[in-house]
Amino acid sequence: MPELRRDPITGEWVVIASERSKRPSDFTAHSPGREEQDREKCPFCPSNESMTPPEIMAFRQPGSQRNGPGWWVRVIPNKYPALGIEGDLNKAGQGMYDWMNGVGAHEVIIETPQHDKSLAFLDTRQIEDVLWAYRARYLDLKKDARLKYILIFRNYGRVAGASLGHPHSQLVATPIIPGVVAAELQGARRYMEYRDRCVFCDMLRQETEEKRRLVAENEHFIAFEPYAAKCPFETWLLPKRHAASFAAIAAEEQTGFAAILGETLRRLHVCLNDPPYNYNIHTAPCNTDDQEDFHWHLSISPRLTIAAGFEMGTGIYINVTPPETAAEYLREVDLEAAALSGEESGVASESGGE
Amino acid sequence: MPELRRDPITGEWVVIASERSKRPSDFTAHSPGREEQDREKCPFCPSNESMTPPEIMAFRQPGSQRNGPGWWVRVIPNKYPALGIEGDLNKAGQGMYDWMNGVGAHEVIIETPQHDKSLAFLDTRQIEDVLWAYRARYLDLKKDARLKYILIFRNYGRVAGASLGHPHSQLVATPIIPGVVAAELQGARRYMEYRDRCVFCDMLRQETEEKRRLVAENEHFIAFEPYAAKCPFETWLLPKRHAASFAAIAAEEQTGFAAILGETLRRLHVCLNDPPYNYNIHTAPCNTDDQEDFHWHLSISPRLTIAAGFEMGTGIYINVTPPETAAEYLREVDLEAAALSGEESGVASESGGE
Repeated sequence: MPELRRDPITGEWVVIASERSKRPSDFTAHSPGREEQDREKCPFCPSNESMTPPEIMAFRQPGSQRNGPGWWVRVIPNKYPALGIEGDLNKAGQGMYDWMNGVGAHEVIIETPQHDKSLAFLDTRQIEDVLWAYRARYLDLKKDARLKYILIFRNYGRVAGASLGHPHSQLVATPIIPGVVAAELQGARRYMEYRDRCVFCDMLRQETEEKRRLVAENEHFIAFEPYAAKCPFETWLLPKRHAASFAAIAAEEQTGFAAILGETLRRLHVCLNDPPYNYNIHTAPCNTDDQEDFHWHLSISPRLTIAAGFEMGTGIYINVTPPETAAEYLREVDLEAAALSGEESGVASESGGE
Repeated sequence: MPELRRDPITGEWVVIASERSKRPSDFTAHSPGREEQDREKCPFCPSNESMTPPEIMAFRQPGSQRNGPGWWVRVIPNKYPALGIEGDLNKAGQGMYDWMNGVGAHEVIIETPQHDKSLAFLDTRQIEDVLWAYRARYLDLKKDARLKYILIFRNYGRVAGASLGHPHSQLVATPIIPGVVAAELQGARRYMEYRDRCVFCDMLRQETEEKRRLVAENEHFIAFEPYAAKCPFETWLLPKRHAASFAAIAAEEQTGFAAILGETLRRLHVCLNDPPYNYNIHTAPCNTDDQEDFHWHLSISPRLTIAAGFEMGTGIYINVTPPETAAEYLREVDLEAAALSGEESGVASESGGE
């Protein structure tokens, strides 16, 4: 069972994943990414379902069998979970230190049966089904009283921490409210107390008026480069309707979310030649109905530069591309060219390597 | 002039380094590290002093000329500074956002004239002079009332963000107290208020008694793996005497600091085959004499795994090597073998690449 340990100075929690334990020689190649697996051995490809733990849910063709082919989105437990679903939450002191067993959930959302089809180039309808799978898993895990927060995220490309090339997202549920989430909630609350307005709604207003950092817009969402972007081409997708939780999304909003997510990923793909990236959904903690304080959104961080000693020691990121410049480049992308290039090189960053 | 922008939600500052501005095509190789330069073109090698901005200070042979050879430690302004030393600090709003011009300092400490000699394998006396140079620059910049914090750090290896192979450290002075620093100060203060003891002194006591996470010890310092290590083989050097600021170090402590820094880096070098790493000195902000609250130290983070979407979205790091295991491996290292291997491969990670 993994364990959670707390830094006695900052109060930040760390997962010690003893089951994944590595010896020094496992690191000495200095290339943290594992090799791309070929299709026959890919545990996420149709017909290889037995290579994964039994599925939690799937969108399937009528008549197809659980843990067999015939699905178009499939959710499974992570084979090497960062946090384990079994058992009660135990807490203890270890001398001056604070300890907790690693109770939680860690799931994988396989986004398509097609090994080489990047999320950016899936049909909007298929992207929407991936988002519905996110929501279904979110709502199911929210019932578990041990879990305080559910993070949905995507690592794309080896440089961004993906170890398998087949398109997938992940979900981790934690027994604590993570520090980054607590800081965002607290900041949004502080702004609300001071101004009696939502900070995200204010951003929506200023970005839509100024347009300098705007990348795309549809009826329900904007995509923009944040004013204080931490890295080149950091991009946020923000719903126009104020809602604390991603799970509160309405059907017509989900369609708009899928459309702007696909479009934004395609713009990044063309502009930056299929960059590695991480995306996260920022949403309120489970069972928080403070609809006034928070406003859910998705942030995409391309991995183009390295955070080093300065960033680690200060938390201040150095961004070499002003967000206004990045937005201009992204707006200029020819999306028809994107459609073509996507057919050819949807997972280029997986095979291209570092 | 670089600018500082504040995230309106979390309050975190970001440096937008417009002078370093990059176009999309600059990123598309997806290999953030630049190439190693050969010795003739290395701006940090003796006789190439004219390739750098004029030196700020140097330890030199008697009779040698400023900005010429004859030095053994040399400090210069960074040619591409993250923050600029000129001008007054200006602050302004930009709609809902907060802005500041990027006033500060960014210096490079060249640790040795020898291009291929890693810090780990310098004589203790030479390491000590590097540390004296750190302190001299710290004390000089501390006089500048515009500067609130001074971070001294080292990026080693391309994966850890180093762009030049010649051994060097860096110093960045900021016009604000960085978020990571504020969180550490606040945490140490909270612990002190609650227990009336220093959290670092308590760690020193528990680690010295338990010994499970201890890596090395001398009269003035311990080296240990922290209980809640964020990454495999994270190692801290903690002075035994409580002091808030690195600058308060006494002469005999500096010798002990140099000795344990060298020993720890050699243990990491042998154990992990010359890993890339970052180290930072955690010290109190300039002009803070709260000697009771903080306790300076140095943290070393080998770059062996990739922080991805989960870490970005939660701030919770997943560490696959328990610190007790890492400490055991590091204690077992044969330092005589280290001395030999260091002669041969002091900068292996530079040429080895990702």
